[in-house]
Amino acid sequence: MQPEKLIIFDTTLRDGEQCPGASLNNKEKLEIARQLALLKVDVIEAGFPIASPGDFQSVQQIANEIRGSSIAGLARALEKDISAVAQALEKAESPRIHIFLSTSKLHRDHKLQKGKEEVIQMAVDAVKFGKKFCDDIEFSPEDASRTEPDFLTEVVTAVIDAGATTVNIPDTVGYSVPEQFAELIRSLKETVPNIEKAVISVHCHNDLGMAVANSLAAIKAGARQVECTINGIGERAGNAALEEIVMALKTRNDYFGVQSGIDTPNIMACSRLVSSLTGFFVQRNKAIVGKNAFAHESGVHQDGFLKKKDTYEIMDPTDIGLEMSELVMGKHSGRNALSTKIKAWGFDLTQEELDEVFANFKILADDKKEVFDEDIMALVQKQKFSDESLNTYSLIKIQGSFESGVVPETTVLLKSRDGQEHSATAKGDGPVDSIYNAIDHITGMACKLIDYQVMSKTRGKDAQGEVTVRVRHENREVLGKSTGVNTIETSAHAYVNAVNKLLVKPKAGPVGGGDIQGP
Amino acid sequence: MQPEKLIIFDTTLRDGEQCPGASLNNKEKLEIARQLALLKVDVIEAGFPIASPGDFQSVQQIANEIRGSSIAGLARALEKDISAVAQALEKAESPRIHIFLSTSKLHRDHKLQKGKEEVIQMAVDAVKFGKKFCDDIEFSPEDASRTEPDFLTEVVTAVIDAGATTVNIPDTVGYSVPEQFAELIRSLKETVPNIEKAVISVHCHNDLGMAVANSLAAIKAGARQVECTINGIGERAGNAALEEIVMALKTRNDYFGVQSGIDTPNIMACSRLVSSLTGFFVQRNKAIVGKNAFAHESGVHQDGFLKKKDTYEIMDPTDIGLEMSELVMGKHSGRNALSTKIKAWGFDLTQEELDEVFANFKILADDKKEVFDEDIMALVQKQKFSDESLNTYSLIKIQGSFESGVVPETTVLLKSRDGQEHSATAKGDGPVDSIYNAIDHITGMACKLIDYQVMSKTRGKDAQGEVTVRVRHENREVLGKSTGVNTIETSAHAYVNAVNKLLVKPKAGPVGGGDIQGP
Repeated sequence: MQPEKLIIFDTTLRDGEQCPGASLNNKEKLEIARQLALLKVDVIEAGFPIASPGDFQSVQQIANEIRGSSIAGLARALEKDISAVAQALEKAESPRIHIFLSTSKLHRDHKLQKGKEEVIQMAVDAVKFGKKFCDDIEFSPEDASRTEPDFLTEVVTAVIDAGATTVNIPDTVGYSVPEQFAELIRSLKETVPNIEKAVISVHCHNDLGMAVANSLAAIKAGARQVECTINGIGERAGNAALEEIVMALKTRNDYFGVQSGIDTPNIMACSRLVSSLTGFFVQRNKAIVGKNAFAHESGVHQDGFLKKKDTYEIMDPTDIGLEMSELVMGKHSGRNALSTKIKAWGFDLTQEELDEVFANFKILADDKKEVFDEDIMALVQKQKFSDESLNTYSLIKIQGSFESGVVPETTVLLKSRDGQEHSATAKGDGPVDSIYNAIDHITGMACKLIDYQVMSKTRGKDAQGEVTVRVRHENREVLGKSTGVNTIETSAHAYVNAVNKLLVKPKAGPVGGGDIQGP
Repeated sequence: MQPEKLIIFDTTLRDGEQCPGASLNNKEKLEIARQLALLKVDVIEAGFPIASPGDFQSVQQIANEIRGSSIAGLARALEKDISAVAQALEKAESPRIHIFLSTSKLHRDHKLQKGKEEVIQMAVDAVKFGKKFCDDIEFSPEDASRTEPDFLTEVVTAVIDAGATTVNIPDTVGYSVPEQFAELIRSLKETVPNIEKAVISVHCHNDLGMAVANSLAAIKAGARQVECTINGIGERAGNAALEEIVMALKTRNDYFGVQSGIDTPNIMACSRLVSSLTGFFVQRNKAIVGKNAFAHESGVHQDGFLKKKDTYEIMDPTDIGLEMSELVMGKHSGRNALSTKIKAWGFDLTQEELDEVFANFKILADDKKEVFDEDIMALVQKQKFSDESLNTYSLIKIQGSFESGVVPETTVLLKSRDGQEHSATAKGDGPVDSIYNAIDHITGMACKLIDYQVMSKTRGKDAQGEVTVRVRHENREVLGKSTGVNTIETSAHAYVNAVNKLLVKPKAGPVGGGDIQGP
């Protein structure tokens, strides 16, 4: 017998991206969508089109380009929201409109200030309106796990009658425990008369650390779609982690009897991409994708007792695409080898982009004795996600000195888009601080550095470091990133990157007043 | 009715510390033990005394000093292991000997190469031997969740008969799902005739992301002790996270009806200490202690809809000790204020240590406009955990320059314990690399830099950064750390710290051949 199929609905680009600090530009979102399609995610929730023109454009871009996965857009139960989604998804291969509306008493009273009848009417009207544009309609009663069971049944029945093909039960505040959450799904299957006409979905948050367990318990109880994110990113403590759900179903198929269609060897690439682009680092002991998750394999803990692999290992690291990365290339490696490798990862570079990556590879191979997969990946990312046409400033040169006990001073030379060069010299607490002060002098912007991180991306003394800065200026916060072997120079590039973002991207302001949470 | 009491058994210092990359020195372990006692953990598993002389000494130190919590030591079912634990715990207020032995068929066949009868006999003999030294004996049938149920019942019955007061059921490989794991606990309660004479404990690993859910399901089914770690650190994907279990029980007391005695406002301090000392950073979206877990509170996502706090919040951030840290002190703050603050955090400084911290505070307050709690915490940690008497080298001075396109060169001056000064100049890919090369020249050790991280510890442009380096030399790997406002200088200190550790601390070599895993 074929195991039953589970629909994987990824919301990395919506619920993941909307959490504080994870701002992605549209180019980055598109690249993540490409990786999600390679991962064979069934539905990609690409964004919340009404939230801002930038969001709209991003959903549209993804809908226009991505094939193989359904593309969903989020909408409140309002015609303007639904129209925006429909418009953004016009060219999608398989569009889905995802409508949400709060149903719990707490949310009805304090957020919506509407009664039960009104809420049902809004939901039904919204689904019917959505149906005009597309067949595939998902409805989420927000805060479902805290909604009165009878009323939840009423709402779900009504929206299925109105045409919803998926009903998603969110545990919006991450309050559920598996036994109770499974019971909720079971009871819906019993009490909703038309439940067979829709797929039951769940959307779990991780506030009490149980998003994955709740999702899996719901699957066992009959849910056939789960909403999840790569690395479990998302509002507050995040959403259920895609990789954990998928690997649990695979490893414990004896118990669940349900399989996802995920191409698991793409998990690591996807995890690394999302981690790097959002600046949300994965902790070492994170299940499945943490550095230590398969630490036995790395030889650190091989012990005399270990006679059989299964003694301590329940998963095969190659199943998630984890292999010791090879010493793949050196300065004599050719362009074809590079191109083949990049294609195998699923990146689609233009001729110019490939030229640029190859040129940078040659420079790197001169500097570094050992060039790893991750090094090349870093070069590709640098190329793919920098949108130089939008840059106001580029870094030409830094020059400085440091000496214990002496306040360091650095001179920075930037070039602006109009071709002019600007130089400033500044002191600081350390060389990095002095560079940032010099840049502030040039731009005239008094930025606030919220966070500064350096992580070595590859191995060895000449490893590339990834510098991530969070910079705030007048209530807007952006992420600046750069990768390189020289931490100081890379720190300067990361800050210039942030400044360029501040000068271009007006922070997506929500439409209709106030931030909108979603399920 | 009083809710039932749950015993919290913390194994951060044993299962947490033994995972790859998390090496702690004995001073650091003692400090963590102190924080765990302040957190009101019921049982602190302090280590595995037979594993090495260093481990023995650490367990002994903790047993001698800590009051209020029971102190446990781990032992295989071997007399020499048990004697070592008994000896290390001699001065403990409430000592516990924790004996483990594999019981699953896979482990019996491949790890132990023993039959069922032999395994039971070993277990019973070990418990009886332990009873000679102490009343409080815990027994763990390793890989219990994959052990044949009948045999598990037999083993548990036999060890309780022999005197075990706690029987711990480990899900050693993190293979369980909550429903099945709860069923296992329920069935033990039914099939083990003398089960009322012992406390049932569980010990869950997080390989499939369900350690917390499995632990909670077991509690619901009757377990009255959980083994867990701060931040969920531990082998591979780690153990169940203490903070998630405790806060889930508190938040969902309506469902569980069981309470821990944990002093939850100490959770954040403990989480930060463990994260900083192990170099295992907590991801932003980690439940309870991640930066974003209470992000609504930080004002980032305050929205127009948010009429009532409970709409999206199920926990109060002050319950875990999370408050916006205050602008506490400036350069005019006095010694008493500082001392009071440090005591309130639970640190117990000697007069000399306090003098040193105060002096460093004054230097910092000159540099920095804003001094936060975290800044002072960093100073205290620097003071408490550096054992200067063991240092071979100290950093006197670095001097160098950098310029885009030019290979940087730095001169480093170190002083060795004998008072001699050593200088070397070296080039590198970047200033940091050139510093590390110069240090290698002086020490004559060709170290390999495995990992390099910088994290800003506090806020603002003059924030202190925490540099963590993992350095390998001839198969030994150590963590070097330093904190300061100047990233370059701090990077140099972190590397010198690592070199000093390499020169002193012979890596705890397991006794009896091969690494020993434990439950």
